[in-house]
Amino acid sequence: MIDGTRLTKTAIRWGMVGGGRGSQIGYVHRSAAMRDGYFDLRAGAFDLDPERGRAFGVDLGLDPDRCYPDYQAMFAAESARPDGIRCVTIATPNNTHYPITRAALLAGIHVICEKPLTFTTAEALDLQAIARERGLVVGVAYGYSGHQMIEEAARLVADGTLGEIRIVTMQFAHGFHSAPVELDSPATRWRVDPAFAGPSYVLGDLATHPLYLAQVICPDLRIRRLLCTRQSFVASRAPLEDNATVLMEYDGGAVGTLWTSAVNAGSMHGQKVRVTGSKGSVEWWDEHPNQLRLEIQGEAARLLDRGMPYLHAQSLGDDRIGAGHPEGLFEAWANLHSRFAQAIEAHEEGDPARAAHLRYPGIGAGVEGVRWVEHCVRSADAGGVWVDYA
Amino acid sequence: MIDGTRLTKTAIRWGMVGGGRGSQIGYVHRSAAMRDGYFDLRAGAFDLDPERGRAFGVDLGLDPDRCYPDYQAMFAAESARPDGIRCVTIATPNNTHYPITRAALLAGIHVICEKPLTFTTAEALDLQAIARERGLVVGVAYGYSGHQMIEEAARLVADGTLGEIRIVTMQFAHGFHSAPVELDSPATRWRVDPAFAGPSYVLGDLATHPLYLAQVICPDLRIRRLLCTRQSFVASRAPLEDNATVLMEYDGGAVGTLWTSAVNAGSMHGQKVRVTGSKGSVEWWDEHPNQLRLEIQGEAARLLDRGMPYLHAQSLGDDRIGAGHPEGLFEAWANLHSRFAQAIEAHEEGDPARAAHLRYPGIGAGVEGVRWVEHCVRSADAGGVWVDYA
Amino acid sequence: MIDGTRLTKTAIRWGMVGGGRGSQIGYVHRSAAMRDGYFDLRAGAFDLDPERGRAFGVDLGLDPDRCYPDYQAMFAAESARPDGIRCVTIATPNNTHYPITRAALLAGIHVICEKPLTFTTAEALDLQAIARERGLVVGVAYGYSGHQMIEEAARLVADGTLGEIRIVTMQFAHGFHSAPVELDSPATRWRVDPAFAGPSYVLGDLATHPLYLAQVICPDLRIRRLLCTRQSFVASRAPLEDNATVLMEYDGGAVGTLWTSAVNAGSMHGQKVRVTGSKGSVEWWDEHPNQLRLEIQGEAARLLDRGMPYLHAQSLGDDRIGAGHPEGLFEAWANLHSRFAQAIEAHEEGDPARAAHLRYPGIGAGVEGVRWVEHCVRSADAGGVWVDYA
Amino acid sequence: MIDGTRLTKTAIRWGMVGGGRGSQIGYVHRSAAMRDGYFDLRAGAFDLDPERGRAFGVDLGLDPDRCYPDYQAMFAAESARPDGIRCVTIATPNNTHYPITRAALLAGIHVICEKPLTFTTAEALDLQAIARERGLVVGVAYGYSGHQMIEEAARLVADGTLGEIRIVTMQFAHGFHSAPVELDSPATRWRVDPAFAGPSYVLGDLATHPLYLAQVICPDLRIRRLLCTRQSFVASRAPLEDNATVLMEYDGGAVGTLWTSAVNAGSMHGQKVRVTGSKGSVEWWDEHPNQLRLEIQGEAARLLDRGMPYLHAQSLGDDRIGAGHPEGLFEAWANLHSRFAQAIEAHEEGDPARAAHLRYPGIGAGVEGVRWVEHCVRSADAGGVWVDYA
Ligand SMILES: NC(=O)c1ccc[n+]([C@@H]2O[C@H](COP(=O)([O-])OP(=O)(O)OC[C@H]3O[C@@H](n4cnc5c(N)ncnc54)[C@H](O)[C@@H]3O)[C@@H](O)[C@H]2O)c1
Ligand SMILES: NC(=O)c1ccc[n+]([C@@H]2O[C@H](COP(=O)([O-])OP(=O)(O)OC[C@H]3O[C@@H](n4cnc5c(N)ncnc54)[C@H](O)[C@@H]3O)[C@@H](O)[C@H]2O)c1
Ligand SMILES: NC(=O)c1ccc[n+]([C@@H]2O[C@H](COP(=O)([O-])OP(=O)(O)OC[C@H]3O[C@@H](n4cnc5c(N)ncnc54)[C@H](O)[C@@H]3O)[C@@H](O)[C@H]2O)c1
Ligand SMILES: NC(=O)c1ccc[n+]([C@@H]2O[C@H](COP(=O)([O-])OP(=O)(O)OC[C@H]3O[C@@H](n4cnc5c(N)ncnc54)[C@H](O)[C@@H]3O)[C@@H](O)[C@H]2O)c1
Repeated sequence: MIDGTRLTKTAIRWGMVGGGRGSQIGYVHRSAAMRDGYFDLRAGAFDLDPERGRAFGVDLGLDPDRCYPDYQAMFAAESARPDGIRCVTIATPNNTHYPITRAALLAGIHVICEKPLTFTTAEALDLQAIARERGLVVGVAYGYSGHQMIEEAARLVADGTLGEIRIVTMQFAHGFHSAPVELDSPATRWRVDPAFAGPSYVLGDLATHPLYLAQVICPDLRIRRLLCTRQSFVASRAPLEDNATVLMEYDGGAVGTLWTSAVNAGSMHGQKVRVTGSKGSVEWWDEHPNQLRLEIQGEAARLLDRGMPYLHAQSLGDDRIGAGHPEGLFEAWANLHSRFAQAIEAHEEGDPARAAHLRYPGIGAGVEGVRWVEHCVRSADAGGVWVDYA
Repeated sequence: MIDGTRLTKTAIRWGMVGGGRGSQIGYVHRSAAMRDGYFDLRAGAFDLDPERGRAFGVDLGLDPDRCYPDYQAMFAAESARPDGIRCVTIATPNNTHYPITRAALLAGIHVICEKPLTFTTAEALDLQAIARERGLVVGVAYGYSGHQMIEEAARLVADGTLGEIRIVTMQFAHGFHSAPVELDSPATRWRVDPAFAGPSYVLGDLATHPLYLAQVICPDLRIRRLLCTRQSFVASRAPLEDNATVLMEYDGGAVGTLWTSAVNAGSMHGQKVRVTGSKGSVEWWDEHPNQLRLEIQGEAARLLDRGMPYLHAQSLGDDRIGAGHPEGLFEAWANLHSRFAQAIEAHEEGDPARAAHLRYPGIGAGVEGVRWVEHCVRSADAGGVWVDYA
Repeated sequence: MIDGTRLTKTAIRWGMVGGGRGSQIGYVHRSAAMRDGYFDLRAGAFDLDPERGRAFGVDLGLDPDRCYPDYQAMFAAESARPDGIRCVTIATPNNTHYPITRAALLAGIHVICEKPLTFTTAEALDLQAIARERGLVVGVAYGYSGHQMIEEAARLVADGTLGEIRIVTMQFAHGFHSAPVELDSPATRWRVDPAFAGPSYVLGDLATHPLYLAQVICPDLRIRRLLCTRQSFVASRAPLEDNATVLMEYDGGAVGTLWTSAVNAGSMHGQKVRVTGSKGSVEWWDEHPNQLRLEIQGEAARLLDRGMPYLHAQSLGDDRIGAGHPEGLFEAWANLHSRFAQAIEAHEEGDPARAAHLRYPGIGAGVEGVRWVEHCVRSADAGGVWVDYA
Repeated sequence: MIDGTRLTKTAIRWGMVGGGRGSQIGYVHRSAAMRDGYFDLRAGAFDLDPERGRAFGVDLGLDPDRCYPDYQAMFAAESARPDGIRCVTIATPNNTHYPITRAALLAGIHVICEKPLTFTTAEALDLQAIARERGLVVGVAYGYSGHQMIEEAARLVADGTLGEIRIVTMQFAHGFHSAPVELDSPATRWRVDPAFAGPSYVLGDLATHPLYLAQVICPDLRIRRLLCTRQSFVASRAPLEDNATVLMEYDGGAVGTLWTSAVNAGSMHGQKVRVTGSKGSVEWWDEHPNQLRLEIQGEAARLLDRGMPYLHAQSLGDDRIGAGHPEGLFEAWANLHSRFAQAIEAHEEGDPARAAHLRYPGIGAGVEGVRWVEHCVRSADAGGVWVDYA
């Protein structure tokens, strides 16, 4: 049960790149990081427009001197200060994740980065190598994975409740971009421009979320080969897709299907993960994250509720409020940020192994997401053919 | 509004092959056919075991003389009687559909046949040719298509409410055969034996249902190519699959996905169809068939209810009970049987065109289902490759 | 498992009063009674308008001579025929139930009557006395009680799964009469006219349904006192109510609440029953009748599905189609009609005890509904005070 | 859209009484108050046990000198400091709310108090008088009212979408105390002891929540008279009730029903509010707070989703994250705390009128809740009779 007492010795001095006024995800980062005092916002380069960025930082209560015009200036100045930031969150469009993360790591600063981590696997591996070498943490913002019921699903798989895993069904298919809304919305425009978004739109932007959830729930599954088809239903988005389907075959014979879309008209998120084993299935839907549906073949379907004593102890550990009360996305993100902070502390104290039991999306998850998108794009662009996964 | 008054002049003298005591689907056929007096059960060859079959027929109130040991005897005797059956329903394992339907047609008897109609497209086309030549009706038991809300979905597509159709998501994925239950259950055993089931298990047994629903809802979509992977999670079922996924590309750019399974552990039917257009989506779930979810992008999702005046007149026509009261599968099947009867009457009166407006699964739907399974199996057996649809 | 073989030796010759063309509930009666051949429609006085009634009977396939101008003529003629009807269903407005049922019983004909059985308890007891004396069956059309999941709920209570019963929450609250629709609809008009509807509208028309369901599920509960308030939100309906709430106290300390309404705007049926014991609760909703929600305190909520082997054998006995497939109201009514027929046969064979195990709404349920409405009206009209139940 | 920039000039120095380690609701208060920097925790008397309280405060990062052994000491010391707390939150058992709130107000400190505010209306009015006289804010922790969809429901009523309001159905009926769990749980024990809980258990503890929601949604309804029955199904709880039902009649003819329970076995929260007017209904369920069901009679039911542009501007104002993402109870509480802070600032600046448009539960709501419980208890203890509301 979380009661606001911090599990780390100190609050981590922390900065942000991006996430400025009007950005979509900036507030979620701040709210999650500062929850329970794990991170303490000291510096920022919040906006492409330095003036807007500075004004916003001041509104957030920052020292104006630590509202920087760009990330280069921030990393230089902060790494020189004795009280400089120890960690930075990067919440900017996709094309900048690689250079900014790289610069942060080279400045000795831990990173929490938005997904997709980079455009290419090579870049992602480069970051992984640097981080490893310098003993730095890179967390990746697969925020949904912080929900307690994802942990519970993982435990049900681990303890054999579902039997041998056979089928994984993943979906993140919303309808908000059914029309070419990017014509009027800058925050959508970059998402469909390869220069900013990278080699994919919905595959990288949406699909990597349920993919990672499935990896958390079924850590033993290894993709053997995959096949992807992608479409640009709003034609001007080509070559970037606004809809895609991916078939996966795992070592050992299990199979996976993933549907991702921004043109699933009328759907809200439509993010669901279902894992089916020889004995039963577990299904989670992010719009009602406090519930988990457990279906054992031959028994009545069960609706598990967050916070209930019948859950596994590990899922209950992150509870903040007791059963019945709805938690939401902010708590999921905050759970991850608590672990990011603990991991950072363990690394700084030279004992990274201490953080080994903490389940959070780190650089490995970041690399994996990029690699997966790369394979999907390769498959789709070859006409929807099977590609071996390596 | 249906009130029990028959729309045909006479009740059709009718017989059955299969559907004997303990069979799964026999009662549904009888109950649907005899509803409102459209069909009048006069003869039967209900069972592989002639004695059991005769006893069962007598229990159903039949003249013992018209309880036949096999279909050959029945068709011979009945076609010789002045009051012989005009129509026969075939509810036997799949391998027998072709020969029995053929024999019935050659005896001048209309047919209502279970799906899949045959094992091969060639066989199905053969039946189509015979039926056409002799002016006989062949109805196929795609019973779900008789639900009013399927009609409503079709009308919403037809009147443009959803915009241009982009994505069709189909599913029929239950969990009842997660374990090798066929070891103890004869009714399951034949389903996984190619000699009886044909070239597929779940593709033919389950997938053709939502496939046909999608065809009813979106009659303008033509498959251009498809790709299928299939698995036998219970290994002893190989070469027949207990799980399969099919990707489809339609002329004009729309795409479809279909998941079918008998090992979706814990799921009841899991039959759903979702059709997504440029403006909105419509979704139907057979376990709650009185509702239809209509989601127009940018508007609140709507739950349409059977029997409500806001529905299209065509969907309301088959109403039997008023809104709020739940109808079920029996009414859907009965709706189709009313149309089968009307079509038979129109054919017998030499005016088949009179039945042209009646939406029911006829021989064309039967052929199409077989052709589709054939393509799926071809694709799967070649390693999950794209095959052109012809 | 029901397969269409009748459990009685013969089909019961049967007639109808009311339920003519355009009536709301006539078709449901016919469809349920003739299902599986239990009842054989031979005669009718279907309509207030003799000509319409006769024409309708002929359309239903009746001998014109047995389409009578009124029930008096029918009972006289039929009781004189050797092949006269053995049972009659009465589906007319409420004010006629008493005289017509009485006349039928005096003519030696079994009755299936719509609810409410009469306007006063005295009348209902009079019918009960006549029926008892003559050894005749009176079934009452509490159709919902034929659903398998109601049987299952009763079994869960009986076997102690819920613990000691504490709270019963009943509701039948639709919105179809939120506006004064009776101005345009004859079928609604009589319902709000005391001359035809009796001393209440929604209490008698709707509330007696969930009341009876609760009695079936919790047969041991005896009402000790009750309190009712009723409102006429459409003022022209006064003194008849279109909304009412009833509080009940049972012997032993359990309590009940019932809400009934025709002005619950936007609701479909809104018929639900929830029974809560010291260990758990069971909840059923008539719009999704194939499911039952079982909630044991401290365990995950369970969704029980009709047709599944984990149900009690008694609930499975009436299954017609297997799990997953939706049954609806027609099956529930048909289940009752099978029992009505068995009870009639047992009575005719002089062995009524043979039918004792059959759970169906008989004259006792009819009396009880009338008595309950009478108490409710008395309480409401005294200003919403407690009245002892006797 | 909330992005973390504070709407008040300063963070309010703030303290807590109660809410110590292991308490149920303390963390929710801290998390909501500190969100976005509105309140700055500086002092506390967190626990009955001074040592535990001090240790906990230190763990929360407080200056040990400002971790007080009791509220008297805290108010004395803090009101003497130039940097003393300006506001205190009281999260202690019910019996202490009156004396602690009174002491705080007399010390010139704004208060956020848990419900029920006091045991008697006289006490509540006393606090109201003191607060008014000294220009202090008293917020009451009706946290659910901060949900955006409650605001939306209020707007739908205000703009006439539902027509004239007729029926309000309220419920907060969980099952967690179906067994006498208080024997093992101190946090439950005080709730069923009149010395700590006051004159009621579930009426004050649970029922006042949906009551207040209904008041927010339908501000024009005035209770004319009410009737309450209450039960102690776990007998040792008497005279305090663990289940109660309240009937209300409002001026103008509308009616209300409220069910509250701690023995609704198997239910999670079971908190729902449904408001029905002459045209339609709106329904909200706190376990899925991001949705609102809008049912207009004669139209398909609509599921409104938080964050969607079709909502009223006022409901969207508090959005933090965009549609699809689930918010939870913490955001609802944080929304209220933002308004508490704004109200405090307005009062401190001598311009309380500036806060008049802010919808939050203030002292008036606190008084009203106590008055309502008082009437309920009076009615119940007189045998469940109607009492005029004054
Ligand atoms: N994890 C999630 O659930 C989730 C959700 C939404 C967005 N995202 C990811 O977050 C990232 C940002 O997305 P968004 O929707 O908030 O975008 P946005 O366009 O709404 O905001 C981007 C912000 O970054 C600032 N910015 C851009 N370039 C910058 C630079 N070089 N230096 C400093 N600031 C810069 C912009 O001024 C703006 O404030 C993307 O990578 C996106 O994929 C993740
Ligand atoms: N449309 C649907 O929703 C649906 C549902 C279930 C089954 N089906 C189809 O219905 C058919 C029957 O399936 P089932 O589940 O009822 O099978 P089943 O094994 O339960 O019953 C088959 C019946 O046919 C009889 N039979 C077999 N061979 C016969 C023959 N040569 N002559 C006469 N009788 C014979 C058997 O004795 C038995 O009574 C299959 O083709 C199946 O695919 C369709
Ligand atoms: N059990 C249920 O779920 C349910 C549902 C609907 C109605 N009902 C009950 O069924 C009864 C009929 O209701 P309805 O909605 O079908 O009414 P309706 O007004 O739609 O139909 C009544 C029918 O009875 C005929 N009729 C009237 N008086 C007659 C008479 N003296 N002799 C012969 N025919 C006569 C009318 O011509 C008409 O055909 C009522 O008692 C009602 O409460 C029960
Ligand atoms: N608004 C809501 O949704 C909600 C939810 C739960 C509880 N509550 C209310 O919150 C209040 C506290 O409930 P809880 O469940 O957290 O109780 P709890 O018993 O779990 O915790 C009470 C805390 O107050 C401390 N305390 C008790 N007396 C004190 C005193 N005199 N001085 C300082 N500290 C003292 C205890 O040590 C403990 O830390 C109650 O009034 C309850 O009704 C409200």
